[in-house]
Amino acid sequence: MNNDTIAIIGGGVIGLSIGWQLLRNGQQVEIYDSNKAGRAASWVSAGMLAPVSEAGFEEMELLNLNLESIKQFPKFAEELKEDSGIDIDFRTEGTMMIAVDRDQAEQLRRLYEFRKKIELPVEWLTGSEAREREPELSPAIKSAVWIPNDYQVDNRNLILALIEAVKKRGGTIHEHTPVESVSVTNDSISGITINGEEKTIKRVVLANGAWAREMKGLPDNVRPPVRPVKGQILTLRMTKEFTLQKVLRSPKVYFAPKKDGRLIVGATVEEKGFETFPTAGGVKYILEEAWEAVPGIYDLPLEEINVGFRPSSRDNEPIISDTPVKGLYIATGHYRHGILLTPVTAYEMAGIILNDKPSELIKPFSLLRFR
Amino acid sequence: MNNDTIAIIGGGVIGLSIGWQLLRNGQQVEIYDSNKAGRAASWVSAGMLAPVSEAGFEEMELLNLNLESIKQFPKFAEELKEDSGIDIDFRTEGTMMIAVDRDQAEQLRRLYEFRKKIELPVEWLTGSEAREREPELSPAIKSAVWIPNDYQVDNRNLILALIEAVKKRGGTIHEHTPVESVSVTNDSISGITINGEEKTIKRVVLANGAWAREMKGLPDNVRPPVRPVKGQILTLRMTKEFTLQKVLRSPKVYFAPKKDGRLIVGATVEEKGFETFPTAGGVKYILEEAWEAVPGIYDLPLEEINVGFRPSSRDNEPIISDTPVKGLYIATGHYRHGILLTPVTAYEMAGIILNDKPSELIKPFSLLRFR
Repeated sequence: MNNDTIAIIGGGVIGLSIGWQLLRNGQQVEIYDSNKAGRAASWVSAGMLAPVSEAGFEEMELLNLNLESIKQFPKFAEELKEDSGIDIDFRTEGTMMIAVDRDQAEQLRRLYEFRKKIELPVEWLTGSEAREREPELSPAIKSAVWIPNDYQVDNRNLILALIEAVKKRGGTIHEHTPVESVSVTNDSISGITINGEEKTIKRVVLANGAWAREMKGLPDNVRPPVRPVKGQILTLRMTKEFTLQKVLRSPKVYFAPKKDGRLIVGATVEEKGFETFPTAGGVKYILEEAWEAVPGIYDLPLEEINVGFRPSSRDNEPIISDTPVKGLYIATGHYRHGILLTPVTAYEMAGIILNDKPSELIKPFSLLRFR
Repeated sequence: MNNDTIAIIGGGVIGLSIGWQLLRNGQQVEIYDSNKAGRAASWVSAGMLAPVSEAGFEEMELLNLNLESIKQFPKFAEELKEDSGIDIDFRTEGTMMIAVDRDQAEQLRRLYEFRKKIELPVEWLTGSEAREREPELSPAIKSAVWIPNDYQVDNRNLILALIEAVKKRGGTIHEHTPVESVSVTNDSISGITINGEEKTIKRVVLANGAWAREMKGLPDNVRPPVRPVKGQILTLRMTKEFTLQKVLRSPKVYFAPKKDGRLIVGATVEEKGFETFPTAGGVKYILEEAWEAVPGIYDLPLEEINVGFRPSSRDNEPIISDTPVKGLYIATGHYRHGILLTPVTAYEMAGIILNDKPSELIKPFSLLRFR
């Protein structure tokens, strides 16, 4: 580790992809993860790329960022395959938003009209039109909105590919190696402490998701206001008799079918701090709502129940930013959009570090907005 | 292994306890299990001892056997503790049968009257009386029946204790060692085959639960008519704010709280052959019905989901029997009563083998009734 090395704290998709892009730009990179790389929120995700489904009424800048990132995904996936040999299963079958009762149908109508107004590509479907496109849908479905341009990837393959790509490009990933604190001297990063020992370093990217706020040694003015938002998520196994191709989303649950036969069904959204366990109620909620929308899941094997912590900032938007501390960069707060925002976060953060200033696109996501 | 050794096929509670009793009577015993001992149906059980709750309208002989076995439990538990040092948490707080809606209340009334008629100790409770005794019960509970004499043990401790006791008494447990076939010569047991090699042996106890019917080498007239009845069962973890003491049973689910904080909630009853996986629908069913009866489970950690196979005979009653093949004994078909029937099965089967004839109590459970 020499003077020019960039230390990245957090080996999820955000930390890994930033590291990989920095490596592709000739930098030296060391990535630290307190556990196995990529096994926190990145692993416990459905891999949906859903800028249109997720578009919020007052989040135009985030919508732009999301749309930019999904546009970058094909190139990102291709570069990643070159460097890793791993296909991340970028799938473009599209997404269907569904309403299983009258309340949800009214809600869906409002969401549809908002998207039409801001000229996002969406198509209104009756219940029977929806079932024609996706025969596993319940006959109770009232209506649906077809979103041709919301896609998905296999998030676990994405993690494995990023790990391979980082290694191939000469980066080092230190697993089970928590960074205990960062040191700041004269408003500049001066080191990080690992196993009780301080190492000199000039540049640090804080990318440890929901844990970023807790990093010791951060001056208060650069402590990112993120908190964990607990999510419980299930993995079912599709059978010969039951197959979904498209991503389905009701206001309560979503279904993301993967090429290898896994069907990811999620998720709860809970303010429970770092409560690590699945609960009877959380699993009950997901299974009930999922069965309501797609009754055919009843007989499918339940393979996994996972818990993850979405890093959510005070305004629910990401922080992709330099800071008042020289050499300290922050990439967290991706909330429900971590997988989707991986390419744009990686490219833009590399840009901020290498050009020493943020682009117009990324400026709204500065840490300074919370002052 | 000499000529007098008794080979027991199946290392669940039935096989282990028979082996242990034979050892206590001076026999030499070798127990074979295709997996880890005690990890099939015995492990995936709630440990309820419920002769009164489970009493069926046309099963008087089984009721007698069940009542005899629960009467033997204190002595059995004490002997087991002497030999193993392990306490099986024999608990006598009693059991409450509950009705969460009008249909269930009517059903419960019939069950109550049947038990009164045959002079089993039961007490009718209103919904509010039931909630006084068990405050975690839902306010929706219509009525309940108090059963003072249905108890429970910790089935996993029972397994561990039996394993220790068998070893302490000089028995050998061969784990991960399937018996591939039994050999019968001139209507007598002559050997068993393990790892392709036949060993001479004169006495065999077939006690491998739902798998007993599949044993190779059995003449058709001694092949026990048992099939697997799949059960899915959950383990929740009780918290400081949530504690149950008693066993609760609705017509749909039961709750068995254990001393170590586990709360066993079960179970599905499914004719799915040896389908080994939990399903979305099975878990949904248990959680919904359980939440209906005891809403406070909502926030409890969901720790385990397990699948087991109850060995069920053609008439749902156990087979505890000698056979037309000399030296072949069968103990299977315990269905929902395996833990409860462990003591009586062990004592009676030892009696059959050592005295060469069954007692009056056990005669109705002969294999020959299926002829």
